[in-house]
Amino acid sequence: MLRSRRPAPAARQDTLCARYAQVRAASLALAEPLTAQDCQVQSMPDASPTKWHLAHVTWFFETFVLERFEAGFVPFDPSFRALFNSYYLAVGEPSPRPQRGLILRPTLAQVKAYRAHVDEHMARLLAERGGDAELAALVTLGLHHEQQHQELMLTDIKHALSSNPGRAPYARHWPVVRVQPEPSRWIGHAGGLIEHGHDPARDGDFCFDNETPRHRAWLDPFEIASRPLSNGEFLDFIEDGGYTRPELWLSLGWDWVRAGARSAPLYWRREGACWINHTLQGSVEIDPHTPVCHLSYFEADACARWAGARLPTEVEWELAARAVADPRSGNFADRGAFHPLPQPGAAGAVPLQMFGDVWEWTASAYLSYPRFAAWPGAVGEYNGKFMCNQFVLRGGSCATPAGHVRASYRNFFPPEAQWQFSGLRLARDA
Amino acid sequence: MLRSRRPAPAARQDTLCARYAQVRAASLALAEPLTAQDCQVQSMPDASPTKWHLAHVTWFFETFVLERFEAGFVPFDPSFRALFNSYYLAVGEPSPRPQRGLILRPTLAQVKAYRAHVDEHMARLLAERGGDAELAALVTLGLHHEQQHQELMLTDIKHALSSNPGRAPYARHWPVVRVQPEPSRWIGHAGGLIEHGHDPARDGDFCFDNETPRHRAWLDPFEIASRPLSNGEFLDFIEDGGYTRPELWLSLGWDWVRAGARSAPLYWRREGACWINHTLQGSVEIDPHTPVCHLSYFEADACARWAGARLPTEVEWELAARAVADPRSGNFADRGAFHPLPQPGAAGAVPLQMFGDVWEWTASAYLSYPRFAAWPGAVGEYNGKFMCNQFVLRGGSCATPAGHVRASYRNFFPPEAQWQFSGLRLARDA
Amino acid sequence: MLRSRRPAPAARQDTLCARYAQVRAASLALAEPLTAQDCQVQSMPDASPTKWHLAHVTWFFETFVLERFEAGFVPFDPSFRALFNSYYLAVGEPSPRPQRGLILRPTLAQVKAYRAHVDEHMARLLAERGGDAELAALVTLGLHHEQQHQELMLTDIKHALSSNPGRAPYARHWPVVRVQPEPSRWIGHAGGLIEHGHDPARDGDFCFDNETPRHRAWLDPFEIASRPLSNGEFLDFIEDGGYTRPELWLSLGWDWVRAGARSAPLYWRREGACWINHTLQGSVEIDPHTPVCHLSYFEADACARWAGARLPTEVEWELAARAVADPRSGNFADRGAFHPLPQPGAAGAVPLQMFGDVWEWTASAYLSYPRFAAWPGAVGEYNGKFMCNQFVLRGGSCATPAGHVRASYRNFFPPEAQWQFSGLRLARDA
Amino acid sequence: MLRSRRPAPAARQDTLCARYAQVRAASLALAEPLTAQDCQVQSMPDASPTKWHLAHVTWFFETFVLERFEAGFVPFDPSFRALFNSYYLAVGEPSPRPQRGLILRPTLAQVKAYRAHVDEHMARLLAERGGDAELAALVTLGLHHEQQHQELMLTDIKHALSSNPGRAPYARHWPVVRVQPEPSRWIGHAGGLIEHGHDPARDGDFCFDNETPRHRAWLDPFEIASRPLSNGEFLDFIEDGGYTRPELWLSLGWDWVRAGARSAPLYWRREGACWINHTLQGSVEIDPHTPVCHLSYFEADACARWAGARLPTEVEWELAARAVADPRSGNFADRGAFHPLPQPGAAGAVPLQMFGDVWEWTASAYLSYPRFAAWPGAVGEYNGKFMCNQFVLRGGSCATPAGHVRASYRNFFPPEAQWQFSGLRLARDA
Repeated sequence: MLRSRRPAPAARQDTLCARYAQVRAASLALAEPLTAQDCQVQSMPDASPTKWHLAHVTWFFETFVLERFEAGFVPFDPSFRALFNSYYLAVGEPSPRPQRGLILRPTLAQVKAYRAHVDEHMARLLAERGGDAELAALVTLGLHHEQQHQELMLTDIKHALSSNPGRAPYARHWPVVRVQPEPSRWIGHAGGLIEHGHDPARDGDFCFDNETPRHRAWLDPFEIASRPLSNGEFLDFIEDGGYTRPELWLSLGWDWVRAGARSAPLYWRREGACWINHTLQGSVEIDPHTPVCHLSYFEADACARWAGARLPTEVEWELAARAVADPRSGNFADRGAFHPLPQPGAAGAVPLQMFGDVWEWTASAYLSYPRFAAWPGAVGEYNGKFMCNQFVLRGGSCATPAGHVRASYRNFFPPEAQWQFSGLRLARDA
Repeated sequence: MLRSRRPAPAARQDTLCARYAQVRAASLALAEPLTAQDCQVQSMPDASPTKWHLAHVTWFFETFVLERFEAGFVPFDPSFRALFNSYYLAVGEPSPRPQRGLILRPTLAQVKAYRAHVDEHMARLLAERGGDAELAALVTLGLHHEQQHQELMLTDIKHALSSNPGRAPYARHWPVVRVQPEPSRWIGHAGGLIEHGHDPARDGDFCFDNETPRHRAWLDPFEIASRPLSNGEFLDFIEDGGYTRPELWLSLGWDWVRAGARSAPLYWRREGACWINHTLQGSVEIDPHTPVCHLSYFEADACARWAGARLPTEVEWELAARAVADPRSGNFADRGAFHPLPQPGAAGAVPLQMFGDVWEWTASAYLSYPRFAAWPGAVGEYNGKFMCNQFVLRGGSCATPAGHVRASYRNFFPPEAQWQFSGLRLARDA
Repeated sequence: MLRSRRPAPAARQDTLCARYAQVRAASLALAEPLTAQDCQVQSMPDASPTKWHLAHVTWFFETFVLERFEAGFVPFDPSFRALFNSYYLAVGEPSPRPQRGLILRPTLAQVKAYRAHVDEHMARLLAERGGDAELAALVTLGLHHEQQHQELMLTDIKHALSSNPGRAPYARHWPVVRVQPEPSRWIGHAGGLIEHGHDPARDGDFCFDNETPRHRAWLDPFEIASRPLSNGEFLDFIEDGGYTRPELWLSLGWDWVRAGARSAPLYWRREGACWINHTLQGSVEIDPHTPVCHLSYFEADACARWAGARLPTEVEWELAARAVADPRSGNFADRGAFHPLPQPGAAGAVPLQMFGDVWEWTASAYLSYPRFAAWPGAVGEYNGKFMCNQFVLRGGSCATPAGHVRASYRNFFPPEAQWQFSGLRLARDA
Repeated sequence: MLRSRRPAPAARQDTLCARYAQVRAASLALAEPLTAQDCQVQSMPDASPTKWHLAHVTWFFETFVLERFEAGFVPFDPSFRALFNSYYLAVGEPSPRPQRGLILRPTLAQVKAYRAHVDEHMARLLAERGGDAELAALVTLGLHHEQQHQELMLTDIKHALSSNPGRAPYARHWPVVRVQPEPSRWIGHAGGLIEHGHDPARDGDFCFDNETPRHRAWLDPFEIASRPLSNGEFLDFIEDGGYTRPELWLSLGWDWVRAGARSAPLYWRREGACWINHTLQGSVEIDPHTPVCHLSYFEADACARWAGARLPTEVEWELAARAVADPRSGNFADRGAFHPLPQPGAAGAVPLQMFGDVWEWTASAYLSYPRFAAWPGAVGEYNGKFMCNQFVLRGGSCATPAGHVRASYRNFFPPEAQWQFSGLRLARDA
C-alpha cells in the first residue's frame, strides 16, 4: 500500500487531516493523567518513558514526512534525529534504548512544543500536498505507528506504576461489570485450501507489510474456543500445580519459570486468601470471568497443554476471526476500562471477544509470508527485521485504540514478554 | 513407531543385535584419537565432554531399556541416574549442564567399564527378548540417539581443541580434494498441494516424533540452488562488507554481530593475506570451492539476503531432497574427512550435496507439524519441548554417521549456534 | 559524642534551631534549579534521585528523632519507613537501591509537603525539648547527615545530566578564575610518635564515630605536595601513555582500565585537539591549573606512581592539614562554583587547598581506628559496616557545604568510584 | 634480598641444588594421587588445573632464570612463554586465566617432559654458576614460588573434587586425632613502640618484598586467643543465628551472605542431624575441636564480632607469633593430614597453632609497609600490584609446605575467598 502512486482524492485528503488531528490529540490525552515525573521514568529496557513515546512518534513524522516532502525543511532540533530514533539504522545510530529514561532534555514541556511545531508544519503540508499518494501513504503509516505507541504508553506506564512501591492507579473510571457468562464452547472449522493475509475488501486499505501478500495455505479441520481463557480457568491451572509441573512446559519456559521463581501471571499477588491484580485502575481482586492477561507465551502454551488443547495457529485464528462482523466493536482503549472485561452474551457460530480485551498468543512463530517483501527504504525496517524468536499475537487488546486492528493484523513479541495485555484462546484438532 | 506392539521378526532381531554392536563400537572409535584429558574438557555450556557423551548414551539404554525390561535390574551405579541424565525431567533432576566438565568420577576408564557392563546386559536382553516390539523400538531409538551424540562428540571436541591455544588436530587423514566445480544453478519446482513429513516407504521405518504426522501443505513455485553456498561465495559477502551492513541482517542478528565483534564464520582467522580455517584435521587455508560451514542462522540469513535470494523453507527443502536417489551416499562422518568437501560433478535436475557435508539452515522455525503428538512417557521429552526459538536444519553433515539422516529428518538449533557444521543453500521465489 | 547525656545549654538550643532551619533550607535551595523530571531520575545504582535525597534526609529526622522523642508520634506516611530507608537494617528492610528512580509516589510536591510536616514537628520538639542532650546529639547528627546528602545531590545530578545526551548544565554562575599559580613544592614533616583522630579542641565538638578514638601512631618522616595535582599534570600523565602502561597500575586498576577502555578521567572528552570537561556549569575546556578531579583511586594511585611519588596515608594527610588555620575557608559548595578552582597564591609552610576543591584519595584503606566502637543502636550502622574494600579520602570538595569537614574527617569510597569530586595530592618518603 | 650481588659460598650452592631437587620433586609427589583427567580440570576462575600449576612453576624457572642466565638458551616450546605466564605483564600478555582448563596441549605427559627438561638445564646451570648471587636469589625465589603453588594445587584440587558430584577424596591417610583440648584463653601483650616486618635474624634470609622494610609501629595493649577458633565455637555462632543477623556483618558481607544464600562454611553440608565436611580425605563428620576453616573474611569478621571480640591486626599477630620457638613445627602439608587437626596441649604464655593448621584472617588490609619498594624488573609484579581490596592472612596452613612460612610472612586474599584453609584467632583490646 505504501507503494501506491495514484493521487489521493480530495475527500480523502480532508479525512487524512482530520484523522491526523484526532490521532495526535489522542496521544496527548493519554498522557493527561500523568505528572511530568511519571512521564520521565523507564522501568525496564523493554518499556519506554511516556515522554519518549510522545517525542518518538513526532520524530517519525518529522523524519519520514517533513524532511522528505517539506520544501525548505529545517529540523526543530537537529539532535532529535538520533535522540528519538528507535531502531531505524538507515537513519543513523539511535541513542541507546535502556537509557531513554535518562533523557532529561528536552523536558516534557519542550516535547509538547516539539509536537505542536511538527503538527503545525504537517497541517500546512497536508493542506498543500495531501493529494500526493506517497505522502498520504506515509502519513497514514505514521498514524498507525502512533496508535501502536499509544498502546505502549499504557502498557509501559502500567509497568512503571507497578514497579513503584505505592502502585498508584493510572485511571479511576472502572466500568464495573459483574456478569456470569456462559462457559466457553468449541466452534468447528472445516479447513481446506484457504486464502490468508490482508484482504483490502474486508480489512480496509491500510495494512503493514508483514500482513502481505495474501496467499494460499492448507488447513486441517480444527476447533476454536468461543471465548478467551478466563482468570478462573487460569486459577484452576495454578491450583492444579501448573507452575510446578515441568511436563506442561516448553524447555525454555521451564527455565524461565525457575529462573524467575514464577507462580502466577505478571501483576498478580497473593494477599492472604485473595489474589490481587494490579491494574491501570489500581489494585482489584481477581474476577474469575475476566479474560486472563499478562501471560508470556510460555504460560499460554503450558496452560493450553494442561487443558488438553493447544494454541491456535495464526492461520486458524484469522480464519475464525473472519466470522466477526465488526472488528471495531470490542473492548478497546477508547472505552476507558484499560483492562479486559467479562462478556455476558452467549456465542453462537461467532466467537466472542476476538477483538479487544486481550492479545491472543498463537502457536505461530513470527515469520514472513510466502513472497513477502519489506517496504522499500528506511520504513522497510518496520517489521521484517524482527522475524526471529518472536510469536504472533492477534486481535488487539483493551489498550489498543479502536479501529487500529483488523483480522489480518499481526502483532509479535518474544515468548517471555508479559507486560502487554496478552492472553490466549484454546484450539484443538477436530 | 515407538508405539508399535507387533513382535519384531527374528531376522530383524539379529539385525538389531548387530546394529547395536556396530553403533556402540563406532562411539568408542570416535574417542580413540583422544587422550583421557581431552575427553574430560567442556569448552562451553553448549558442548559436552567426550566422556560425558560416552556415558550419557549408555545411560539412555540403562534407564529407558534395562531398567524397564530387564528382570532383576540392578543399576551399575545408582548415582549415574542423575549424573548422566541430560534433560529428562520425568527421570529426575539432571546434574547441571555447564558443569559436565567437572565430573571427575567416574573416570574415563570407569565410563568404559560402564559401557561394557551395559552392553553385556543389553546383548543378553536382546537375545532373550529382542522380539518385543516395544523393546526393539526403544533400542532403535537409543541407537539413533547415540548417533546424534556421535556427531556432537565431533563438534564438541572441535570446539574444545579450537579453544586450546595449540589448536591440535583431531585427525590427520585429510582426503585431498582439489576440484573446480561448475557453478551453482537454480532448479525449479512447481509447488502446489503436497504431502510433507515422514514417509516410511521412502524414509525407512524409523523416524523421530517431530517428523510426523505426514500432512498436506501448500507450496508456491520456487527455485533452489543446485549446491550449498561455498567458501568463495561467502568470502564475496565478507568482502562486500557483509558484516558491516545492518540492512542485511535481522535485528537480533545485527546485535549478535556487534556484541561479538564478528567478521567471519567461526573457526576462520586471518593470517596476513590468508584466511585460515581450524578444522578437525588441523589448520588449513580456506578452499573457495568447499561448502561454507559453522554459520549461525543469522549469517546464513544475511548472506542469502545479500545474494538477492533467501533460505528455503523446510517444506521446500524436503520436496527438493526427494529427488536424491540415495541419502546415504554423501560426505558423512564414515568417510573420515570430518569436513565438507568440494564436489566436482555438474547438477542436472537433482541438486548436489543435499545430504552430508553441511547441515542447511532453513527459513522455518522449529515448530510442531499439524496434529503432532509427542511420544508418550519420558522419551516424549526428546523433541517437542524444544519447539521455541530454534530453526530447522536439514540434510546431515560431514560429522553425521552415514545412514542416520533422511529427507524428512529435522535438526534444530538456536539462531546463534555456530559450532555445528551448519551452512546454507539458496532459494528464491519462482 | 552521641552518647553525651548532659543537658545542652539554652544558647546552644537556639543555635540548634537556627542551624536546623539553615541546613534544611540549603537542601531545598540546591534542588531549586531542577525540574521535577530532573529530580526523579537515577542514572546509576550508586547515585540517587534528588527527590529521594530530599525525602531520605527527612526520613532520618522522622525515624531517629520524632519517632523516639515526640509524644504521640504519628508517621506522615507509614510506607515511607521502608521506602526512604537507605541501609539501616535495624529499622527494617530498605526498598532496593537500584530502583530509587522508580519511586513515582510520593511526587516531588508530596516530598516537599513531607519536609514541611517534619520541619514543623521538629521545630516544636526542639523548642520543647532541645535541652535534652541525646536529642540534640541526634539532631546534630541528622544535620551533618543532610549535609552529606547535599554533596551527593550535586554529584548525582551531575552524573544524571552528563548521561543525558544534551548534557544540560546545573548552574550558570561560573566564577571565572584564570590564574597562573606557582608550581607545587614539597613540604616536609619530621614524623615521630603522634596523636591521630578527632581532637575536639581543634576539630569542634561534633565528629562521626569513625574519627575516634584519638590514638597514637608512629610516622616516618615524609613530604607532601603544597597543592593538589592539576589538570595539566594529569594531562602529562595521559600524554606519557599513562593509561597504556600496566606497570603503573594496581592489578585491579589495570583490569578496570581495560574493561572500561578508559583513557581519561570521568567527564573528560576529546573534541578535535581539545579536551572538554562536563561540569555542573556546562561544558568547558580543560584548564591546566585547576585541580584534577573525578579520578578513581586506581587513577590517583597510578598517576602518583608515574610521578615518582605516592599517595599520602591518612595519618600523614591529617598531620599536614593541622597546619591550616581555617578549614572553612576553601572552595566549598557555598561559593557556588561547584567545580575546583585554580588557586593563585604561593605556599609557604602551609599546604594550599587542603580543604575544599577536591577530596584527596589517601593510600589508607578505610578501617577502624584502634579501640573503635560504633555508636550504639541503629545509627551504629552509619559508618562501621562499610569498613571493607574502600579507601579514605580527606579534605572536602567544591560540592561539600562549608563547615562540614574538619582535619579528622574521613570520607570513603570504593577504589573504582569516580563520580565524586575526587583528586589527589602527592607525597613521598623524606 | 633479591638484589644481593655477593657470590654465594660453595656450601650454599650445594644446598641450593639439593633444595631445588627436593622442592621440584615435592610438586610431582602432590600430583601423584591424581589421574590425568583430574589434572586437567579447572573448577572456577580462581582455581587452576594441577597440570597448569606444574607447568607454570617450571615456566618461572625457564623465563626468569634460564632465559637470562643460560648461554645459548633455547626455549623448550616458544608458545609456553605466554601459555604458562600467570600475570607478569612485563613478560607479555598471559593467556586468559578462566580458560586454563582448556589447555589440552601440552598434555600432562608433555608437561612432565617440560619439567624434566628444565630441571636438567637448571641442574647444569646451578653446577656451573650457582655461585652467582643474583642467580641464587632468583632460584630461591622460584622455589618459594613453587611452594606457594604446591599449596594451591591442594586447595584447587579440593575445590574441583568437591564440585564433582561424587566428591572423591584426594588422600586416604587420615591421622585420627580425637582429643579434648583445654579451652582457649587470652594471652596479653603490653604493646608500645615496636619493630615490625622481616627480621633476618629470626625469620631467615629469604623473604618476599612485601614483608619489608622492617619498620616501627605503635601498638596499644591487646590480648590474643591461645588457639584458633574451633568448629564447635563456629557451630555456636551458626546456632545463635549468625548467618541471619545483619548487625554482625559488614555491609558487603551481608550482601555476600544473601546473594549466595549462605548458612555454613564452604564444604560443610547438613545431612539429617549431622554436619558433614568435605575434606581432602573424603567426607567426615565435623569435629568440634578442630580449627574451623574455609571461612571468608566476612565470616571470620562476623563470628569475631558475635564473640564480643575482633580479629587481630597483622602487627598484633606478628608480635604474638614471635613467642613461638619453631615456626616449622606445626601441622603442615608434609604431615599428610591435609586438614587442620585438634591440638591436645594447654597453652602457657605461648599461643598454640600459630603456624600450620589454618591461615588466620587479620583485620589488616593488604597494603605496603612504609618505604616499601617492589623488587626491580618483572618479578616486581609478584606482590605489590595486588595491594587493593585484599586482607592479610598469617601463619600458614595444613596445605603449606613445612618451612615455607615465618612470623613475618604475609598471605593475602579478597574478603570473599573461601577455598583456602582460612580460619581465625580472636583478639581484643586489653
